[in-house]
Amino acid sequence: MTAGHGGSLTVVGIGPGRLDWCLPGVAARIASATDLVGYRRYLDLVGVETTARRHPSNNRVEADRAAFALDRAAGGGEVVVVSSGDPGVFAMASAVVEQLDRWPDRWRNVRLEVVPGVTAAQALASRVGAPLGHDFCVISLSDVLKPWDVIERRLDAAAGADFVIALYNPTSRHRPWQLGLAVEVLASHRDPITPVVVGRDIGRPDEEVRVLRLDQLAEAGADMRTVILVGSSTTRVLEGRPLGASVYTPRWYGLPEGHRPTAPSNHATA
Amino acid sequence: MTAGHGGSLTVVGIGPGRLDWCLPGVAARIASATDLVGYRRYLDLVGVETTARRHPSNNRVEADRAAFALDRAAGGGEVVVVSSGDPGVFAMASAVVEQLDRWPDRWRNVRLEVVPGVTAAQALASRVGAPLGHDFCVISLSDVLKPWDVIERRLDAAAGADFVIALYNPTSRHRPWQLGLAVEVLASHRDPITPVVVGRDIGRPDEEVRVLRLDQLAEAGADMRTVILVGSSTTRVLEGRPLGASVYTPRWYGLPEGHRPTAPSNHATA
Repeated sequence: MTAGHGGSLTVVGIGPGRLDWCLPGVAARIASATDLVGYRRYLDLVGVETTARRHPSNNRVEADRAAFALDRAAGGGEVVVVSSGDPGVFAMASAVVEQLDRWPDRWRNVRLEVVPGVTAAQALASRVGAPLGHDFCVISLSDVLKPWDVIERRLDAAAGADFVIALYNPTSRHRPWQLGLAVEVLASHRDPITPVVVGRDIGRPDEEVRVLRLDQLAEAGADMRTVILVGSSTTRVLEGRPLGASVYTPRWYGLPEGHRPTAPSNHATA
Repeated sequence: MTAGHGGSLTVVGIGPGRLDWCLPGVAARIASATDLVGYRRYLDLVGVETTARRHPSNNRVEADRAAFALDRAAGGGEVVVVSSGDPGVFAMASAVVEQLDRWPDRWRNVRLEVVPGVTAAQALASRVGAPLGHDFCVISLSDVLKPWDVIERRLDAAAGADFVIALYNPTSRHRPWQLGLAVEVLASHRDPITPVVVGRDIGRPDEEVRVLRLDQLAEAGADMRTVILVGSSTTRVLEGRPLGASVYTPRWYGLPEGHRPTAPSNHATA
């Protein structure tokens, strides 16, 4: 590692993978970077022209990738770490700050910036209407970095308090049982017909969005590229409307009929 | 309302209010719209040039605003409803779909699209590092549309299951007691020194970000433009680092020391 003035490390999220859903600030950073660290697949998805040196990192664990990027920045580079979605949500921003925490005297000369992005739950929600219109939780079902009993406890708490719940990493080849167990916990609190939205590769050419019921979720065929939104008791499905206007969670909750602001008080006509 | 082929209604979020944090798709929609519905303050924040007719709606309730926008679209307009943040999170997307639900045979000819955006919790998180790096909840403390006991129950469940918690609408002139009561519930589960991030007007010229402790939150001076992130038991503050690298929640949880992926397994040096 070279001593000296140091460069910058910017952690960016490219959103779900569409250029028009990627913040302009992200494209600008990629364009002017000296080094790009991240999956080549993500960089290709955005398609920003850049002369930056690419360091694809498919074989590294996140901690290695973060330390490598910090080293490049400490040496004077303008380094960009590229995540999908929002880098602050189950992604590289936490891995980078964790390295700074681990090595308090190292990388002191690196300027860090995180640029947010659209995370998968938001992208999926926008495809069906407004299922995240009220209080919600975001939970990863992966037990690689936390014990399964923590996940169950959180699912139980979130379902018991009637949050809408976004599930990330719902299953994997090595853990095909995760989603089924999660559904069991959720079903102990929710009606079997609770609306569920299942999305895969949102914003990409092979995007897939399905509106199902909770009792269909365990067999829905999810993988690591799937994100799932489980409705609360108030989430509603509109029959006969196009997919883009088919699911929403009202802004109100627990109000008697007459107190719900469902009807315009003074309906304007253009 | 004019019958006929109908136009389109696009609900967009401009993010926290910086043009470079607003999706390109949003600016494009505003530029080509015939009608813009929303607060003029939001439109001015983005500063997109457009010949669209503006319908500022500060005096309307959300249901009226949604129905008005749908009527304009049914008459053939290319109408854009402008929210701040993400329109799918405590914003106009839910209000619009709720109108479609309320009037099943009306506005059948309107094409609806929701374009996501960066919501306040994400914007604030990016300013301090990665406090949302692990499972989290998003809760509005406003009791205008839900009873306070529902809010307390959700706070209790989220804190008890050790989620990071994002609080929207933490207090208002008419309800100055909300935040204090919320802190009481959180403090029954969390250590008084739990890190808390308080942000106001993120991304705008008068942006304000503070890193506090839970026992300082009740007196922190929040208002309706404030968003708050309350850490989990694992959220950490880095002393001596700049604000942008000062708070994170590790990706791991509940793992014994030797099993935490904090150290690079094979530290690469550039």
